Amino acid sequence: MPNSLNRCLQDDHGGDQNMAHMKHVNNLVKLRSLFKNLKYVPEPIQGYVVPSDDAHQSEYLAECDKRRAFISGFTGSAGTAVITETQACLWTDGRYFLQATKQMDDNWTLMKEGIPTTPTQGAWLSKALPAGSRVGVDPKLISYSAWKPLQTQLEAAGHSLVPVATNLIDLIWNDRPAPPKGTVEPLPLVYTGKTSKTKVEEVRTMLAEKGATLLVVTALDEVAWLLNLRGSDIAYNPVFFSYALVTMHSVHLFMDECKLTPSVRQHFNQEDLCITIHPYEKIQDVLTEQISEQEGKIWISAGASYALTSLIPDKKRVSEATPIALMKAIKNNVEIQGMINAHIRDAAALCCYFAWLEKEVVKGTVSEVSGASRLEEFRREQENFVGPSFETISSSGPNGAIIHYTPSPESDRLLTVDELYLCDSGGQYKDGTTDVTRTIHFGTPTQFEKECFTRVFKGQFFMGTSVFPTKIKGNCLDTLARKYLWDVGLDYLHGTGHGIGSFLNVHEGPMGISWRIYPEDPGLQEGMFLSNEPGFYEDGKFGIRLENICRIVPANVPYKFKDHKFLTFETVTLVPIQTKMLVREMLTDKEVAYLNDYHKQCREKVGPLLKKMGHHEAWEWLCRETEPIV
Amino acid sequence: MPNSLNRCLQDDHGGDQNMAHMKHVNNLVKLRSLFKNLKYVPEPIQGYVVPSDDAHQSEYLAECDKRRAFISGFTGSAGTAVITETQACLWTDGRYFLQATKQMDDNWTLMKEGIPTTPTQGAWLSKALPAGSRVGVDPKLISYSAWKPLQTQLEAAGHSLVPVATNLIDLIWNDRPAPPKGTVEPLPLVYTGKTSKTKVEEVRTMLAEKGATLLVVTALDEVAWLLNLRGSDIAYNPVFFSYALVTMHSVHLFMDECKLTPSVRQHFNQEDLCITIHPYEKIQDVLTEQISEQEGKIWISAGASYALTSLIPDKKRVSEATPIALMKAIKNNVEIQGMINAHIRDAAALCCYFAWLEKEVVKGTVSEVSGASRLEEFRREQENFVGPSFETISSSGPNGAIIHYTPSPESDRLLTVDELYLCDSGGQYKDGTTDVTRTIHFGTPTQFEKECFTRVFKGQFFMGTSVFPTKIKGNCLDTLARKYLWDVGLDYLHGTGHGIGSFLNVHEGPMGISWRIYPEDPGLQEGMFLSNEPGFYEDGKFGIRLENICRIVPANVPYKFKDHKFLTFETVTLVPIQTKMLVREMLTDKEVAYLNDYHKQCREKVGPLLKKMGHHEAWEWLCRETEPIV
Repeated sequence: MPNSLNRCLQDDHGGDQNMAHMKHVNNLVKLRSLFKNLKYVPEPIQGYVVPSDDAHQSEYLAECDKRRAFISGFTGSAGTAVITETQACLWTDGRYFLQATKQMDDNWTLMKEGIPTTPTQGAWLSKALPAGSRVGVDPKLISYSAWKPLQTQLEAAGHSLVPVATNLIDLIWNDRPAPPKGTVEPLPLVYTGKTSKTKVEEVRTMLAEKGATLLVVTALDEVAWLLNLRGSDIAYNPVFFSYALVTMHSVHLFMDECKLTPSVRQHFNQEDLCITIHPYEKIQDVLTEQISEQEGKIWISAGASYALTSLIPDKKRVSEATPIALMKAIKNNVEIQGMINAHIRDAAALCCYFAWLEKEVVKGTVSEVSGASRLEEFRREQENFVGPSFETISSSGPNGAIIHYTPSPESDRLLTVDELYLCDSGGQYKDGTTDVTRTIHFGTPTQFEKECFTRVFKGQFFMGTSVFPTKIKGNCLDTLARKYLWDVGLDYLHGTGHGIGSFLNVHEGPMGISWRIYPEDPGLQEGMFLSNEPGFYEDGKFGIRLENICRIVPANVPYKFKDHKFLTFETVTLVPIQTKMLVREMLTDKEVAYLNDYHKQCREKVGPLLKKMGHHEAWEWLCRETEPIV
Repeated sequence: MPNSLNRCLQDDHGGDQNMAHMKHVNNLVKLRSLFKNLKYVPEPIQGYVVPSDDAHQSEYLAECDKRRAFISGFTGSAGTAVITETQACLWTDGRYFLQATKQMDDNWTLMKEGIPTTPTQGAWLSKALPAGSRVGVDPKLISYSAWKPLQTQLEAAGHSLVPVATNLIDLIWNDRPAPPKGTVEPLPLVYTGKTSKTKVEEVRTMLAEKGATLLVVTALDEVAWLLNLRGSDIAYNPVFFSYALVTMHSVHLFMDECKLTPSVRQHFNQEDLCITIHPYEKIQDVLTEQISEQEGKIWISAGASYALTSLIPDKKRVSEATPIALMKAIKNNVEIQGMINAHIRDAAALCCYFAWLEKEVVKGTVSEVSGASRLEEFRREQENFVGPSFETISSSGPNGAIIHYTPSPESDRLLTVDELYLCDSGGQYKDGTTDVTRTIHFGTPTQFEKECFTRVFKGQFFMGTSVFPTKIKGNCLDTLARKYLWDVGLDYLHGTGHGIGSFLNVHEGPMGISWRIYPEDPGLQEGMFLSNEPGFYEDGKFGIRLENICRIVPANVPYKFKDHKFLTFETVTLVPIQTKMLVREMLTDKEVAYLNDYHKQCREKVGPLLKKMGHHEAWEWLCRETEPIV
């Protein structure tokens, strides 16, 4: 799934939109009445910012954290609400202009991000507020890197940005869902390949290199990875609400004690990790104590909340991607083998689905929604499957051109033999996370659809077979995937590659491949896994995307240039590319040989599993779809 | 000439190195004695930083500004000297480790930049100094963007960075050359295409868009471009020491009045520009007055000196590339035609030189130095030639592998039929600036040399014929030029493209093409000119570089993607590529067709001029070298 904006591209279709529509006028009145209530605000405020963040700056939110959706009515994944005494504005980007317009009532003004005349929140507030105003925000729900520029802009205009510890939305959100109490499970060494004790020791080595003696871990997937635990508090992401502090001599975990099962305690014993458990809410108190005790610097991600970051004096703070971010991105041998194996099983499920579709679509009975359900059933048959890694993008015809589309009852379309079908889906398996997109035509594609598909394929091949020096930024490879589209004046408006977790989040940093810069990209390194997913979208007509997950491996090169190491990609996704969509004359011999070899691998690696599971139709489909082209 | 480090890659070989060697021990003693002399420092200092900058943060320095070379003995183009009571250290990068080691005596420690264990200046000073120390620096000679991180690091360690207005080096530099008094000449409209009055009006429009009412112009080429004046204060760069302030109603120029000839005054009249002239030294005073008068923001480049930038309160300051930087980079139609014409004449001079070399090299009488002189003579024959645009890189065999090499009497080598010859040179013409590199073998190249040359050519072709969306950052194209080298594990350690002035500096921002990010790159746009110069260097053996200047033009594409405009390059350099260096089997039909067409253009556009000037041998050489390959 593309991650062009470093943000989830998924739309959340809440079921209770109508109710929200009726409620949120009243909610604005209630919210504004709190602006001057000194029980909740340190001083009266004239404006209040409601970001999309949770306290961990997660990409996906638990229901209880969808505060911006609650107050504005707009349920898209990205957006910030700003409420003053007289106005209410919502900033979101081009993916959501239509949806936000539909979902919000007259009390709200849509501020279109990415359009040059749209002011930033800071610029707008600076002008909209009376002189010397105070703007409040929950300091847990805004990253330090977002707080700073907003503060600077407001102060330049004579206003101030003030942290309001009590969340004002929570005070008026009567039926706010309870925080999730998902179970937490240890992930055994057979999947993680490294004990949490070893991981902690490696973290300490990296702390020492920076002169730091304390690491503050706020990202949920970083805590899960470090401690070899997996949770279920947030849909699609096997994480649990928690923080961790790692000092040179101790490890502190902050989580709801009710999730701390005997198996979790036993796991720490097994992994020989001495750990102190605190209630989730104690993070600020314990961090404050630690800050005064630590002699070295304190390392915290620049993306962590203002609430935690501001506790640490500037001079003591290292504000960079944590050492865990990089360690997590570079998979160890056990994780690598797990990713490879998970992708074989995932490919088997997709083969079953596509073979099934081939039979069923002609009957006119399969819709985007029902197809996605059937796909999930096929995945459930596979060993180690836990759940989908994101909401399936199952899109037919024009819906395929909506990059962040997920089907809903209102938008659902039948799959037909006349339109392209784009399916972007993935699974969480105990040994790995998958994310794969294929675009298929069940009838006769147009020449233009075929030409675009071929250019997308050529771009995916070109980037996927490229050789590059180790530690080059992902940014440097993006153009390779676009080149054949650019040649004829076409393009796609999302990134080309994102990192992916090992039974963790489907979008993972710190590296990525895009024309935009990933500011914390440590450079591409052996053992990383990234997606390779060029596409092309014709608004109102069709969407094409081909997405593989690739592992970075050493390249076999004939020459040696100083001590530079060269790398390349090895594709671990093993699902056939529909050859009837390719214009043969546009392909080079190299591309044909590559495709035939890729299909041979699909057949050899996925075929035996299909046969073993008795999926004979899928096996036959796989054989047909992997016939060499000449 | 490559500009990978945003810094000149040229080495300055001062003639008086021996004298400097003897003097600079004594100079350190003298300098340290000033640390506590309250006549010159506001409070005693414990360390002093000597950057390579002049007061305009120029790439090339006038002799009087080579302070770091004076104190350290090291004459390379990049480096910073740091002197404490007991130590003296010089930071420079890998290009200069050998040279710095040779040139500096035992009092100096070389700090190797780019090696992970080398501390930054701030980190080193933080540890080396006694608690609570003050470090001095001339605030005119350090950019604001260099000052800030140094200040932060020092303050974090309990020290402070203090501006010392009197330059301590100048006090001890007895035979310091006088500041240059080069002439200043107007550049007529027939070359500039736009009056300074119109340029000032366009600047004001861009100021208004930012809410600014004053622009501080500190870069010498920006002043020269804005006012349509050219100077001769710095070798190779037709600029003059000056500052300018542009308000919504006035223009202030700060320069030595003795350079203000009647023709310059007449020029301002002709261009209908009302301008107030001040002595060069008055910039701080007048800027201070203006700051208090202006109601809007004040725009100054982030690369301007701390001395000027710090006068402007944070809240009033816009710290971005100036509007002039972008306006200057996008050439108007007159400048475009001038660049095209200048490149034809420059190509004629190079054809004469290479034809001459072909005859002379076999005699064993041409050296790198004498060749470069002969080339300059050929350029002098051309209309509108003013002088070289940088010191010619004329390098034979192993010297070609030293990327920043310029020949000196000590390093001079004969050109032979056994070695590759790399020639990177350029001219300043009244209608344009040129910069071209060709690599030639006068005998029989090895197969490896040919393979590398072919890969460099393929990269240059690949990037030079690419189609890309308007405003894509130059960074996104860099990989195209490297791809065929990377494929076999080779690379080059400099950038691929830099902007170039129109009878101005040979290296010009704000855009550029490199694997590194140009932080102020506004994206590639129609009308910009950039170099396209991949290379390959085998240490101790040979160097290959092929450099063209390219103009960005609209691309002719069959499809339309939303309202996106697509661009491509048009090569304006017209000097043959030596076909005998190419491995034919490695070239595609497209590449061969491109090369044959390029050579046809060289013959058709440069040939007539050679014939007209009576250069028959060069004409014959051109015909031979542009024979189509099959």
